[in-house]
Amino acid sequence: MKVLTFGELLLRLSAVGYDKLFQSDYLKASFCGSEANVAVSLANYGIISKFVTKLPNTDIGKAAIRTLDYFNVDTSSILFGDGRMGVYYLEKGVSQRPSKVIYDRSNSVFALSCADDYQWDTLFEGVDWFHWSGIDPAVSNNVSHIVEEALKKANEKGIIVSCDLNYRKKLWSSEHAQKAMKKMMRYVDVCIANEEDVQLSLGIKVDNNDVNDALLNIESYKKAANEISKNYGCKYVAFTLRESFSASKNGWAGALYHNGNFALSKKYEILLVDRVGGGDSFAAGLIYALINKMDDKDAINFAVAASCLKQTIEGDFNRVSVEDVFSLMNDGGSGRVIR
Amino acid sequence: MKVLTFGELLLRLSAVGYDKLFQSDYLKASFCGSEANVAVSLANYGIISKFVTKLPNTDIGKAAIRTLDYFNVDTSSILFGDGRMGVYYLEKGVSQRPSKVIYDRSNSVFALSCADDYQWDTLFEGVDWFHWSGIDPAVSNNVSHIVEEALKKANEKGIIVSCDLNYRKKLWSSEHAQKAMKKMMRYVDVCIANEEDVQLSLGIKVDNNDVNDALLNIESYKKAANEISKNYGCKYVAFTLRESFSASKNGWAGALYHNGNFALSKKYEILLVDRVGGGDSFAAGLIYALINKMDDKDAINFAVAASCLKQTIEGDFNRVSVEDVFSLMNDGGSGRVIR
Amino acid sequence: MKVLTFGELLLRLSAVGYDKLFQSDYLKASFCGSEANVAVSLANYGIISKFVTKLPNTDIGKAAIRTLDYFNVDTSSILFGDGRMGVYYLEKGVSQRPSKVIYDRSNSVFALSCADDYQWDTLFEGVDWFHWSGIDPAVSNNVSHIVEEALKKANEKGIIVSCDLNYRKKLWSSEHAQKAMKKMMRYVDVCIANEEDVQLSLGIKVDNNDVNDALLNIESYKKAANEISKNYGCKYVAFTLRESFSASKNGWAGALYHNGNFALSKKYEILLVDRVGGGDSFAAGLIYALINKMDDKDAINFAVAASCLKQTIEGDFNRVSVEDVFSLMNDGGSGRVIR
Amino acid sequence: MKVLTFGELLLRLSAVGYDKLFQSDYLKASFCGSEANVAVSLANYGIISKFVTKLPNTDIGKAAIRTLDYFNVDTSSILFGDGRMGVYYLEKGVSQRPSKVIYDRSNSVFALSCADDYQWDTLFEGVDWFHWSGIDPAVSNNVSHIVEEALKKANEKGIIVSCDLNYRKKLWSSEHAQKAMKKMMRYVDVCIANEEDVQLSLGIKVDNNDVNDALLNIESYKKAANEISKNYGCKYVAFTLRESFSASKNGWAGALYHNGNFALSKKYEILLVDRVGGGDSFAAGLIYALINKMDDKDAINFAVAASCLKQTIEGDFNRVSVEDVFSLMNDGGSGRVIR
Amino acid sequence: MKVLTFGELLLRLSAVGYDKLFQSDYLKASFCGSEANVAVSLANYGIISKFVTKLPNTDIGKAAIRTLDYFNVDTSSILFGDGRMGVYYLEKGVSQRPSKVIYDRSNSVFALSCADDYQWDTLFEGVDWFHWSGIDPAVSNNVSHIVEEALKKANEKGIIVSCDLNYRKKLWSSEHAQKAMKKMMRYVDVCIANEEDVQLSLGIKVDNNDVNDALLNIESYKKAANEISKNYGCKYVAFTLRESFSASKNGWAGALYHNGNFALSKKYEILLVDRVGGGDSFAAGLIYALINKMDDKDAINFAVAASCLKQTIEGDFNRVSVEDVFSLMNDGGSGRVIR
Amino acid sequence: MKVLTFGELLLRLSAVGYDKLFQSDYLKASFCGSEANVAVSLANYGIISKFVTKLPNTDIGKAAIRTLDYFNVDTSSILFGDGRMGVYYLEKGVSQRPSKVIYDRSNSVFALSCADDYQWDTLFEGVDWFHWSGIDPAVSNNVSHIVEEALKKANEKGIIVSCDLNYRKKLWSSEHAQKAMKKMMRYVDVCIANEEDVQLSLGIKVDNNDVNDALLNIESYKKAANEISKNYGCKYVAFTLRESFSASKNGWAGALYHNGNFALSKKYEILLVDRVGGGDSFAAGLIYALINKMDDKDAINFAVAASCLKQTIEGDFNRVSVEDVFSLMNDGGSGRVIR
Repeated sequence: MKVLTFGELLLRLSAVGYDKLFQSDYLKASFCGSEANVAVSLANYGIISKFVTKLPNTDIGKAAIRTLDYFNVDTSSILFGDGRMGVYYLEKGVSQRPSKVIYDRSNSVFALSCADDYQWDTLFEGVDWFHWSGIDPAVSNNVSHIVEEALKKANEKGIIVSCDLNYRKKLWSSEHAQKAMKKMMRYVDVCIANEEDVQLSLGIKVDNNDVNDALLNIESYKKAANEISKNYGCKYVAFTLRESFSASKNGWAGALYHNGNFALSKKYEILLVDRVGGGDSFAAGLIYALINKMDDKDAINFAVAASCLKQTIEGDFNRVSVEDVFSLMNDGGSGRVIR
Repeated sequence: MKVLTFGELLLRLSAVGYDKLFQSDYLKASFCGSEANVAVSLANYGIISKFVTKLPNTDIGKAAIRTLDYFNVDTSSILFGDGRMGVYYLEKGVSQRPSKVIYDRSNSVFALSCADDYQWDTLFEGVDWFHWSGIDPAVSNNVSHIVEEALKKANEKGIIVSCDLNYRKKLWSSEHAQKAMKKMMRYVDVCIANEEDVQLSLGIKVDNNDVNDALLNIESYKKAANEISKNYGCKYVAFTLRESFSASKNGWAGALYHNGNFALSKKYEILLVDRVGGGDSFAAGLIYALINKMDDKDAINFAVAASCLKQTIEGDFNRVSVEDVFSLMNDGGSGRVIR
Repeated sequence: MKVLTFGELLLRLSAVGYDKLFQSDYLKASFCGSEANVAVSLANYGIISKFVTKLPNTDIGKAAIRTLDYFNVDTSSILFGDGRMGVYYLEKGVSQRPSKVIYDRSNSVFALSCADDYQWDTLFEGVDWFHWSGIDPAVSNNVSHIVEEALKKANEKGIIVSCDLNYRKKLWSSEHAQKAMKKMMRYVDVCIANEEDVQLSLGIKVDNNDVNDALLNIESYKKAANEISKNYGCKYVAFTLRESFSASKNGWAGALYHNGNFALSKKYEILLVDRVGGGDSFAAGLIYALINKMDDKDAINFAVAASCLKQTIEGDFNRVSVEDVFSLMNDGGSGRVIR
Repeated sequence: MKVLTFGELLLRLSAVGYDKLFQSDYLKASFCGSEANVAVSLANYGIISKFVTKLPNTDIGKAAIRTLDYFNVDTSSILFGDGRMGVYYLEKGVSQRPSKVIYDRSNSVFALSCADDYQWDTLFEGVDWFHWSGIDPAVSNNVSHIVEEALKKANEKGIIVSCDLNYRKKLWSSEHAQKAMKKMMRYVDVCIANEEDVQLSLGIKVDNNDVNDALLNIESYKKAANEISKNYGCKYVAFTLRESFSASKNGWAGALYHNGNFALSKKYEILLVDRVGGGDSFAAGLIYALINKMDDKDAINFAVAASCLKQTIEGDFNRVSVEDVFSLMNDGGSGRVIR
Repeated sequence: MKVLTFGELLLRLSAVGYDKLFQSDYLKASFCGSEANVAVSLANYGIISKFVTKLPNTDIGKAAIRTLDYFNVDTSSILFGDGRMGVYYLEKGVSQRPSKVIYDRSNSVFALSCADDYQWDTLFEGVDWFHWSGIDPAVSNNVSHIVEEALKKANEKGIIVSCDLNYRKKLWSSEHAQKAMKKMMRYVDVCIANEEDVQLSLGIKVDNNDVNDALLNIESYKKAANEISKNYGCKYVAFTLRESFSASKNGWAGALYHNGNFALSKKYEILLVDRVGGGDSFAAGLIYALINKMDDKDAINFAVAASCLKQTIEGDFNRVSVEDVFSLMNDGGSGRVIR
Repeated sequence: MKVLTFGELLLRLSAVGYDKLFQSDYLKASFCGSEANVAVSLANYGIISKFVTKLPNTDIGKAAIRTLDYFNVDTSSILFGDGRMGVYYLEKGVSQRPSKVIYDRSNSVFALSCADDYQWDTLFEGVDWFHWSGIDPAVSNNVSHIVEEALKKANEKGIIVSCDLNYRKKLWSSEHAQKAMKKMMRYVDVCIANEEDVQLSLGIKVDNNDVNDALLNIESYKKAANEISKNYGCKYVAFTLRESFSASKNGWAGALYHNGNFALSKKYEILLVDRVGGGDSFAAGLIYALINKMDDKDAINFAVAASCLKQTIEGDFNRVSVEDVFSLMNDGGSGRVIR
């Protein structure tokens, strides 16, 4: 199986440890992006994983490519052009102090890329699965059109399509998002979301009065999944269920709707190292599980265990193997030294 | 409103991370001091904030000044002289292992400064609020006399006076402290303390049998506040209520006595990053709240939320803004990413 | 009292912080080994502590020696020879992600050392206590014979012998271990173990169905201790009781069997900084306590408090003093700043 | 005397040490800009120094301000607005490998600022000297108009004007530069340049066949200075004379034309730590010298010694005092320990 | 053109900066090896570059692969097996203090690999150039046989063969080396060496009395080249000419013998950052130049400029592009900032 | 042979790399002192080396001891008491920028120690050589008396005495120094100095007009040595000859007067890493050479080579072995990799 993911690559500049931004003289630099994060996870699991984007033709763009090559992601179809790379600044929170993100991603060479840049017929050669996220159309109208074109082409070719709704309020309004996303959802086979995404991207409300006990509202999630499936024809609808006790401690679980069933995962209470990229690692875990035809319960448990591990690792990328995920599923997280 | 704080600035040399002192080859260096910490917090909140001290006329003293200038504290009245700067070494604890402080602050240029160095008439020009702490008179007899003179002058000029009792057993005995502090308390409008300070500086006992459940003893705190108010005429008496579960986890709350009322704050369970400076950030939060005429409940909640955030930040200084504090008060500490 | 410990010294190369191995460009380097860790703890407690091993005659071997000299361990009897030093790579886990150890210790100069290298008559001069661990015979047949010879000699000389069973499944099978260990146990006065060691090294099963509540199974531990004492004539049998909630949070307690009594320690819930070396610091605490003739309850509490502190310190070595341990025993772990 | 400088502040992200960009995971972050660098130098010399720019209203913009406050630059007139801050990436060269700069500064909030943002009448209150550089008009047409307006106003008010030609080929063409700069030069009293600037900004050629022996061509520099003075009425024309032996070793000297005289400085052979900001520290040294009415020889020697020291210091800012500069002028650079 | 290189990959553990080994607590970790270094250089120049070796099937072996993937080296034919990876410890010298290397590479999985592991027919598919070095046969008899087999196969297929003699005295004696190397030299088209290699691997003496002026002895080099060409039929013989003034300053040049001509390069005086890997980057530069059919003078100048740049970069790998090399050849090493 | 050295141990806090003090947030911490530096060097050379001082009875004093234990210095006679440890701040210069030292060493527990603290009869048991420096009497009158007492006792016992004049102008005036030193010189067998020391401590002028060519003035040095020998009966007078080209480049040589001969060493041009401790490593090298009865030429060459190496190493301590020194003497400093 070969998976193609499409999206923007950003330069992430994060404060060291739990410092406030610019509290120390150094920033930790890495390259990441929701869809690239998925590609890296899949490559780590041994899936042939291609990532498509457009990058500036500078030492920065080249270093970004190398970061993906490091994880054996296929970068041979990445485009280069004149322009800039988007940047985001991250301050990691701890305890009651929340993490903060500052975007500086306008006018990136990716946001300004145009439909003619991408030859989807060629790009989709040999591809079995196409993954994108709601960040794509949010980046620019150009990219929105490009995604739509890709979706049509993927459907023509019988490629499975997954989408992480990934609503970002600093990139577009809910109104704008719904207009774009509702149209594209009909091409989507596997829909991945949290309760906020569902409401702001699709206008479907999940009752979630108690953010600290996601499972209390599980019926409401099931109803939403049913509605998504009915409205847009998605075969799978997966939810991440995050309980935010603090910036350092989260509850983490997931649920998978499929053919009327609603499988709930084991729940983990995570001491967070870096929660950014948690959703992407969930998406990748789910894609891996579905490619490998796990049953619904195993699939959602695999996705949740994979993304639990990611959140104990610094950086957007999930650096674990399939064995690591299974090991957590079997051992239950006791954290005993493996020696 | 313009606030003046007066006290000693120290060079803090702390072991890196949670290492034991000298476990690694590096020490983290910063400049701090209880009253300077208050000045920095207030400047961060947009208050005009002046700090007065005496520093050695060396590159070390100059670097200390710059650290305060960085936070836009008014350092134009700081004095320079020949001599040394006090130093303290800090080893941060974790879990059952406690933090340790080693002082090397004797004979500092500040401790040896004399009354003639400070022209309070000039220093107090335009000042509305004067803040000092019990560390001042503990440093030396010289400084004790200087503070007393400043207090008299402040009273003459109708300047509001706040004092954090801040008892330090390595600097003086309870007997010595009570002799000095009781005399000066009559100039104080706003008294800030914890249960140990009250007993050792003023001889007023708070029943606090269970250090891990401060709220159990709340009536005893109320009684103490009433006594302080009656004895010394303080308009406000504020307590920090710390529950020490371990070096990594503390309960944190506060209470404010005013006009016979006793307002209790929300309580936070903090995963500590650096608890040093917690009390100072509480004092600054309270001063800000009172300057802005918040009601008692809001005032104590602001002070506690501000100081909760401080304890998630490395270093003595509270690097948060008014918006950050309100955000915690409103959000309750779920720690969700702000993006 | 003078204690001699004997074993292999390894170069530990650990990923920085909680990074995955090779996630960053740096490795933290230190020298350690179960029996050396015990020697360092004892030297820190003021006991005359000698460590015997064989090291490569290179700048690496010399640096290893210096590390022990730093802690005032007597290294004057360490042997040098041509060859390599064993290495182990450590990735510290966090939350649900477990720590991982990769050994590269085959064919070390120690493993290849032979009986003639060690003159036990000379080495044991003035020695009152001999400590070894199950890692010794697991390293190689050569070392297994060397230990056996040392044990005989120690018995002849009336030297007290303690052994930490320390079963390591990557070094030998349970079958092989039992064959070697059972034979040597009859020289042992003080046996130290956890439930896994007892089963895999001695074939004595401890019912421990619930790894997260060690105390539930306390009768089973008692039975095992009794059996060990009966079979091998050990005067003391001590257990560490670890509850693994996650890679970051462990319950930690101990129990000491002596003359039919079974003393249980206070239990600590530890926020782990580095659990490697925890067992060694327990052994050292126990040896110190027994040398100082503490009663059983105090002895096991000292050993557990000492090893609780170790697990809050980076690196294999327990860098605390006797005062630090007593301070935890008295204060109970509230973690209040000592200033 | 009070000096105002005007220009863009950038976030500088440099590779650690002499690494290639993204060779390590960290970038060193600082804020800088040609005109801000001059302001910092002057504040270090005790001159009242105000810097005017426009910054984004984010934690990044606020941190930038603090960096200048640290050096006691007057930042009270800095404007805030929505938008981004320009960034530049720096890879420091060594030996034969050159330093590299990658700009990402388009569409910054400064470049997009407009004439109405700046109230020059107010800004110039109490100002005696106005410093700008050729980077200002190169940034955008908006800023070009703003500078022109400022220059007219400065002339009306009798404020001395200095300009560092600072030609940047990535920002504009020589043709465009000449068109803009020639028009503005008539407002300039003190012109600062190197041989490349003079040619590309003003179209005046300096014969400099041997870049490794600037002094060989000194007559040509004198002729150029004369021509600038004649064409634009500048009272002072100062040149930096850099000999580039390698990325690690430069010859460094200067020359000052004034009233027909042409004073040449002492020459230093510098082992470079960070040459970026060298020209700015020269400009600041010269401004300080002229404000203090040094004679031509002393003035150019002060400027050259000051900028020699800067190039031994990491970062754009010259962190030396007047005493440090005089000490080099007197001692000649023997580098003996001052203890 | 596609190049295959074959050799051992080692874990390099170097002291930080110019510290002595174990002076600080950290070691800088990277993966490298003479033939892998060549592969990385070539991949950086855009050549299709495949590296073949055998690695341990652990997280260490996998991280090693990723390091090569980062540079887009084709690692798809690398073998895995049980065992260890070789390690070398590096202490970088400075001024009069020399660099030191300590090997711990015995019994690596590569050294123990056997002829059956490598299917040269398959490995050489599409390959135009095969590069190996004298370290290969020095590692073990097994590898010596494997190389010999590869050479025969390469000759059969008309693949060009280059060899860097790379004599390592800690791996084998000159006698042993000559026996092996002389036999294999007849398969070599391009021989790369320094004066020590030639003597100790081939028994051909270069008069090099003055190590600080290599060019003085240039006739002797020419004679040696002629002899090598005559004895073994090499079409090209290339020498690196290093003048060791100190551990920080080296002269660096090269010479290329071809068809009776002897082309001498420009000489650089390098301020060394890391000289390890200098020879490998020379070999790669030469291979690139010959593949691109540069004339002899250009070829040797390209190789020397490329390897000059490498020695200004930390780590074994040469992280420069073809443009960087040409830029040095054209600019001559003035080190001016590229902005 | 057993050597005892006596003096103050300081905490050295140095700016990281070549940063200005407090430019970064970290200080590098180490313990050092002229006489301790000598003791460490000698222990590294295999000499039994005891260091005597008085330290504060805190975790800081204990860490200081451990630093010396690390190098196998005999610390068993070090005294402890209440009080503080002296501190010095170091900013390392580069190129034209000089290093700077700021002392904060007044009132240290050592400076305040008194004659009764030291039992010289016991301390000198088994001692063959006593080394002190001019810093000792400069520290305080107390220490001055203690040294004098030690000298008398050493003379009585026939212990060889060496003294490094080590004049420190921040500790005492030349007048004060001469008064103390002249009196004590008569106990000294081996006098070590530079030209400044000789003049300011003993009032003997060395003509040294050209600090950049020490050898020009060699006759003047010889005359001074002769005078010292005659006046005070020293058997050996050794000079360090430093040429300060810049803070990064120094010429370094030495001369040894003995029995009317004046042996001159080889001269090294050093690229300085850390010149602090250079003189101490020279003294230690000389002591080692004389203990080993090298002839005058070898002795001065050994001392100079040893101290040349020290200046390429970060920190006060010379971390080299006898073999390293001989290796430089034989190889001449070409800096070739030792592998």
